Amino acid sequence: MSEAKRLAAEKALEYVEDGMIVGVGTGSTVAYFIDGLARIQHRIKATVSSSEQSTARLRQHGIEVMELNHTGNLSLYVDGADECDGNKCLIKGGGAALTREKIIAEASERFVCIVDPSKQVPVLGRFPLPVEVIPMARSLVARRIMDMTGGQPAWREGVITDNGNQILDIHHLQITDPVALERELNQLPGVVCVGLFARRPADVVIVGGEPPKVF
Amino acid sequence: MSEAKRLAAEKALEYVEDGMIVGVGTGSTVAYFIDGLARIQHRIKATVSSSEQSTARLRQHGIEVMELNHTGNLSLYVDGADECDGNKCLIKGGGAALTREKIIAEASERFVCIVDPSKQVPVLGRFPLPVEVIPMARSLVARRIMDMTGGQPAWREGVITDNGNQILDIHHLQITDPVALERELNQLPGVVCVGLFARRPADVVIVGGEPPKVF
Repeated sequence: MSEAKRLAAEKALEYVEDGMIVGVGTGSTVAYFIDGLARIQHRIKATVSSSEQSTARLRQHGIEVMELNHTGNLSLYVDGADECDGNKCLIKGGGAALTREKIIAEASERFVCIVDPSKQVPVLGRFPLPVEVIPMARSLVARRIMDMTGGQPAWREGVITDNGNQILDIHHLQITDPVALERELNQLPGVVCVGLFARRPADVVIVGGEPPKVF
Repeated sequence: MSEAKRLAAEKALEYVEDGMIVGVGTGSTVAYFIDGLARIQHRIKATVSSSEQSTARLRQHGIEVMELNHTGNLSLYVDGADECDGNKCLIKGGGAALTREKIIAEASERFVCIVDPSKQVPVLGRFPLPVEVIPMARSLVARRIMDMTGGQPAWREGVITDNGNQILDIHHLQITDPVALERELNQLPGVVCVGLFARRPADVVIVGGEPPKVF
């Protein structure tokens, strides 16, 4: 899979234009993108990063990382996903960076999602859906989500997000209407972010391969 | 106003039943409720608190404070509000405790809201609407809210919530459909909590006076 990830990341470099501030996601596929970005860093203005992990890797390469509060909207965001359906709706958050990732996606005109072929599914939900929650609401949100969805929430114990929150992973979902599920879960007090990217899906999906598939 | 607050808080004590775990809000009116609760603390099992401030006051009185994750749903929640309309929809968050307050309200069967007469309005929005945001999303959310509502967001500089986040206060709103506005703002990535309590309004409102008005 690592070769497929690298090929997807290389293809995404074609979307980088001169002078851009590039939004950069998190994860193993994005790590290849960051390494590729390092080779063309003289062409970009800076980056905005979705995690401490990506910030560290960008800075190791000498790439400037800016605060989103100082940049305004971005032209391009490149990030991976844990699952991707045919409508470019995504499940993200396996690496617990979903909230910052969703913020950057919202701020970006074009979201290019890079995945290996194993991430493509006809219906989202095989991968457990991550939900970031305020710690004191963990049990309440878990009960509400069980009632609403029939899914089985599991607390990702020991994991604290970059925002100081906790993660519930919702198992056994068949997400036939991801836009509706995202909207409903967003209403629950204590939910900081739902790892469904459906209200704002990817604009372009690149599936790594020889050649990469773009849709 | 302090006498009206005290009278509302005293009336709310009538809703406390033996053996309850009582949800306790935050603010100057709730401070009177906590002081009253201290007199009948032998009757209750414990409390759940919505802020460090209320936790400190409860513990000064020797009242036990439990974690919501350990209690399950609560029978009763007592809290104030910054504004209250005729449908018991509320604006809260002037004290920056909106997120934890909304979590406890959601977990509670009955939400008794205690206010002085100055908090009653025909249409919500004279009081700026607080929105808790992830710090990196502050500017993005402010731009989106301006576009969506026409309101004027102001960053409450220097204020960090109990959850490590920041507050935007949205000025110049006329909130004729609070349920819809709450639902739409909840969709914005980076919004942790909207200070509108409309999807889950108060069940009982007590307006302090001689006698108190209950609706």
